[in-house]
Amino acid sequence: MDKARIGIINVTGYAGVELARLLSQHPQVVLTSVTGRSAASQRLAEVFPHLIGTDLVIEDKLGDVDLALVAMPHKESSREVLPLLDRGIKVVDLSADFRLKDDSEYTNWYGIAHPAPQLLQKAVYGLTELYRAQIAQTQLVANPGCYPTGAILALAPAVKRGLIKADIVIDSKSGISGAGRSISLKGHYPEANEDTTAYALEGHRHLPEIVQELGLLQPSQPPRITFVPHLVPMTRGILTTCYAPLTSKLTTDKKGKEELKHIYRDFYKDESFVKVLDSPPHTKHTSGSNLCLIHPTIDTRTGMLVVISCIDNLIKGAAGQAVQNMNLMLGLPETTGLEAIAVYP
Amino acid sequence: MDKARIGIINVTGYAGVELARLLSQHPQVVLTSVTGRSAASQRLAEVFPHLIGTDLVIEDKLGDVDLALVAMPHKESSREVLPLLDRGIKVVDLSADFRLKDDSEYTNWYGIAHPAPQLLQKAVYGLTELYRAQIAQTQLVANPGCYPTGAILALAPAVKRGLIKADIVIDSKSGISGAGRSISLKGHYPEANEDTTAYALEGHRHLPEIVQELGLLQPSQPPRITFVPHLVPMTRGILTTCYAPLTSKLTTDKKGKEELKHIYRDFYKDESFVKVLDSPPHTKHTSGSNLCLIHPTIDTRTGMLVVISCIDNLIKGAAGQAVQNMNLMLGLPETTGLEAIAVYP
Amino acid sequence: MDKARIGIINVTGYAGVELARLLSQHPQVVLTSVTGRSAASQRLAEVFPHLIGTDLVIEDKLGDVDLALVAMPHKESSREVLPLLDRGIKVVDLSADFRLKDDSEYTNWYGIAHPAPQLLQKAVYGLTELYRAQIAQTQLVANPGCYPTGAILALAPAVKRGLIKADIVIDSKSGISGAGRSISLKGHYPEANEDTTAYALEGHRHLPEIVQELGLLQPSQPPRITFVPHLVPMTRGILTTCYAPLTSKLTTDKKGKEELKHIYRDFYKDESFVKVLDSPPHTKHTSGSNLCLIHPTIDTRTGMLVVISCIDNLIKGAAGQAVQNMNLMLGLPETTGLEAIAVYP
Amino acid sequence: MDKARIGIINVTGYAGVELARLLSQHPQVVLTSVTGRSAASQRLAEVFPHLIGTDLVIEDKLGDVDLALVAMPHKESSREVLPLLDRGIKVVDLSADFRLKDDSEYTNWYGIAHPAPQLLQKAVYGLTELYRAQIAQTQLVANPGCYPTGAILALAPAVKRGLIKADIVIDSKSGISGAGRSISLKGHYPEANEDTTAYALEGHRHLPEIVQELGLLQPSQPPRITFVPHLVPMTRGILTTCYAPLTSKLTTDKKGKEELKHIYRDFYKDESFVKVLDSPPHTKHTSGSNLCLIHPTIDTRTGMLVVISCIDNLIKGAAGQAVQNMNLMLGLPETTGLEAIAVYP
Repeated sequence: MDKARIGIINVTGYAGVELARLLSQHPQVVLTSVTGRSAASQRLAEVFPHLIGTDLVIEDKLGDVDLALVAMPHKESSREVLPLLDRGIKVVDLSADFRLKDDSEYTNWYGIAHPAPQLLQKAVYGLTELYRAQIAQTQLVANPGCYPTGAILALAPAVKRGLIKADIVIDSKSGISGAGRSISLKGHYPEANEDTTAYALEGHRHLPEIVQELGLLQPSQPPRITFVPHLVPMTRGILTTCYAPLTSKLTTDKKGKEELKHIYRDFYKDESFVKVLDSPPHTKHTSGSNLCLIHPTIDTRTGMLVVISCIDNLIKGAAGQAVQNMNLMLGLPETTGLEAIAVYP
Repeated sequence: MDKARIGIINVTGYAGVELARLLSQHPQVVLTSVTGRSAASQRLAEVFPHLIGTDLVIEDKLGDVDLALVAMPHKESSREVLPLLDRGIKVVDLSADFRLKDDSEYTNWYGIAHPAPQLLQKAVYGLTELYRAQIAQTQLVANPGCYPTGAILALAPAVKRGLIKADIVIDSKSGISGAGRSISLKGHYPEANEDTTAYALEGHRHLPEIVQELGLLQPSQPPRITFVPHLVPMTRGILTTCYAPLTSKLTTDKKGKEELKHIYRDFYKDESFVKVLDSPPHTKHTSGSNLCLIHPTIDTRTGMLVVISCIDNLIKGAAGQAVQNMNLMLGLPETTGLEAIAVYP
Repeated sequence: MDKARIGIINVTGYAGVELARLLSQHPQVVLTSVTGRSAASQRLAEVFPHLIGTDLVIEDKLGDVDLALVAMPHKESSREVLPLLDRGIKVVDLSADFRLKDDSEYTNWYGIAHPAPQLLQKAVYGLTELYRAQIAQTQLVANPGCYPTGAILALAPAVKRGLIKADIVIDSKSGISGAGRSISLKGHYPEANEDTTAYALEGHRHLPEIVQELGLLQPSQPPRITFVPHLVPMTRGILTTCYAPLTSKLTTDKKGKEELKHIYRDFYKDESFVKVLDSPPHTKHTSGSNLCLIHPTIDTRTGMLVVISCIDNLIKGAAGQAVQNMNLMLGLPETTGLEAIAVYP
Repeated sequence: MDKARIGIINVTGYAGVELARLLSQHPQVVLTSVTGRSAASQRLAEVFPHLIGTDLVIEDKLGDVDLALVAMPHKESSREVLPLLDRGIKVVDLSADFRLKDDSEYTNWYGIAHPAPQLLQKAVYGLTELYRAQIAQTQLVANPGCYPTGAILALAPAVKRGLIKADIVIDSKSGISGAGRSISLKGHYPEANEDTTAYALEGHRHLPEIVQELGLLQPSQPPRITFVPHLVPMTRGILTTCYAPLTSKLTTDKKGKEELKHIYRDFYKDESFVKVLDSPPHTKHTSGSNLCLIHPTIDTRTGMLVVISCIDNLIKGAAGQAVQNMNLMLGLPETTGLEAIAVYP
């Protein structure tokens, strides 16, 4: 059988170029077309010397493909996605445009009416571990945000099993590549280096995604989530620390801790990319890989659940998860092209 | 009048050498003696080339001084402090040995009986902003830990004014110098660079200090604190993000936010080193200075207080605060020798 | 006597804001006026929170001052400087506009005719250690570039004493703040972090300065300089490694090495800010200070002089040296306001 | 045919664990045994969580293998290698023990008599691009040092074609992982971060390797090499800048530059892992890959050849090149298991 032809829209951002790297090494698909308006007609390997083995030229318009990975900013993405769907092309959209089920929430957070509200129900939220079966059947996957990926995977077992009450604190620490390849003062090296700061205290746009998905896991108890993202001086990686008071389902002692670990291990026992660790994970141990590492524990003094997760924000938090979803949509083994081990140290 | 003669015990750690830097530039005292067993008899400027203008030689035993700054590790510190007190020397102890009022708590956390429990009541906890008057009168100051300094200053107004309930989450992000100058795998550059991780999930030794001090601020409601420290890849700085549910004293809207800011501004209105900001602070803006920057706000969706503070962990979190206390103990203006502006970028 | 009133033109770049920091702490002058078009009418402390104690407002036009520090980009600077000189104001210009004595060289490197060639002879090159007397008498100082400062100080004794032949290699490694505060892809954190690269291989604009000044030190032998600047992932600091074949004035053995060190020590024996070390210097040991650390040695296998220098590019390489020159121009002790010790670690 | 069984001696250093990563993903060999005294009997994935998918247990003694990769420190390595050779096992030794052909040079640099001088002629220097044929036939490969790999690849075409005179300056900038996984003060994060420094000015042990190999490429003109290594604050990567005066074979103008580029392109035209670029390379573009990127140019003002190369010091500078050599020794395609694209940004 011929290999599926894959295209990338907006290859010149960090998610886009990471998709290009992963797909260049993917044994079961062929990357045949990449677009990017600013660098159109340049060779991809000229703009990105690490892709030196690639012959692709950045195009103005996407060629004929079987599946497209769309790495546009939100709002701009849906304009690209809609015509692709009309052409019968499968799409993994890495923007936020199709993640929220409720179009009024979209309007709340993005300030405009959604251009295709009817698609919001059709699109599948691409957190592979939660929606594997639906992803395999859909034409449109809304790839999750980087923060939601780490946070939802960290909390899903606890929420699903009713281990925690509704008040959840999510404190995330992200590397600077999460802010994208567009230059800005906050991403300027002398500003970001040797600095840690919090931002988006009024509400980060990834919050409604997290609320939606955790709410769906436990409809009887809508979560109340306080989410504060931080920037730390590293290129890749997100570490997320989650706090929530336990319900009475677990004791707040050593036995409860063990039970908690078993519940998490069991929840993720068949997953290739989610691993439950006995000790706090390091972002470094996921860098360059599609892994999510999780360490759940209990603060026995206060009865709080503490769960820490980490991912490479550009892989499991973006391009890697998109490829994971693409694999499912194409009927390929989910791990194809994603086996690379983290590059340590 | 003659300037006071100051000594530093264990000048070769990061707190010790930072004390040497600050005191070398202090206009009202003279650094006359420094000790450090490993490097004894070496010139200080040879071990630390940035102190090139200094003639001091590292000694085996402290010379005759009016006040000593003791920068030993906990447990070892009290052995140095006791004879100094007997000689009538004033002491600022930077270790944890005299911070806890309850010697059974000391035993819980440090695994040994306290060698001089009678001193625990006599020692003054050296968070200058809270204990200014007592510090000026005491012979022994227990200089606070770096994490407690940032956390207590962030929460003191809210706790004191009864704005929050008892369940508090403190999520701190520290630069690597906080782990000291002793080499270790976790502080090895290739391990710490491009990495973020949580540690001490079983309970960090700075926790009982925070519990003690916040408890003293609001005796009617003992706090239940979940504290998770993190290491982020920078040399200096601690950013602390605090979360706690509001009581009914504040509304969880814009008005409540304004009121909160006024309460914080009022609480710290006479402080030289604590500044309340309208936006989230950056550790970089305190680096090299004795400042603590604080931004209090309310998550209006969830009714949570969120307060973010930052300090330079080696200055306000250690050596700078020690000098601030020393100034008070010597009857000098509190800011003497501490006016340096942060080195940005 | 009244303190001199000082102004800064273009306070919003890194050199400008570093000038503001140094002058805010200067005991003998008053910073009375700062300009910066983009941020005009904002409070300086709002744009730069580390300057929180400052009340200055950024102005559109410079107020009435005795001396102005001009931190504009080259070509734009002379437009600001000329009217100031006409008003009788003393000027330290931090741009390249008045550094070259030969206006045809200016045209070669900057592509335009010099707007005021008659001033090129009048302006004094502000490498304080070489032109102290002239600086004290002039109205206009051309403050050296960051690379030239490190390179000329490293080589001046060897060139002046005729120790080396004409072919010199200068390999410099600079922190990213050297590229300024204007955002750019090469200064974007994810691009600059974990990266080292060379640039300006066709010829960096600091080269003619170095050639001019080393040539003036030894007119009998015009130097042939190969200069390659590099960017390394740190905020501050330049390390410069210089290589040149020795003449027969020194033997290429241990004795020659000792003699070399004595020559360097002697050359800089009265200098407050230039220190000759016995071992290779670390940029970290100059960070936040006005020091230049120098280590001269001989590769005894090849007979090459190797000299390594380092500076904080924003202090001795820019703002600090400008203040050093300002002090001389105002008749103040050269070190006033510049005694801060490097912030280590 | 059965896949070859591979062993790693001393898997717990950075070269060793990088070998483990590469071999775990290698499609044509099986990693069957790893040793490491300090961590013996621990699971490899426990010591190194990024290798979470690996079942190997660290052994005290190497099991039965077809080929061993020895990642011991110099001097200790030969003690491991000799018995392996006696057992008929093929060996790639990553230490310096078999790199020098002249045992008196070994004694000069390492201070001991070589334990098996007869093997020095038999061992093949494992710079694959220069000794491909011999590597395929030998039982013992001496894998090059990280600095020599970058320096020799940068200079080989120029030396071989007689383009440069004998006096060569090599200025290298290395990430901190080059100093190994053993903890030390110079590798301590707060010391290494925000710092650049030179070291080993008396002579680095990689120098005789470079002299030997460049001398073999042009026996008529023994090179006189001044080599200064530097540490820069990044984990991975070496950038090497080489300077040498041109002979008359090339003109020092634009035409000469073009010719130079053609000579380099031609020299490396069949190489998979050495690429000649039109612009200065970035270490980042090799990070995680086996590439060596090279940019040769001429300083037309001074007639100096300037060549810049970069590699990932742990891959092409150590583990990757070892696998490249292993492939040849096993009759496998040279690039097997080494196709991973650099992880950018």
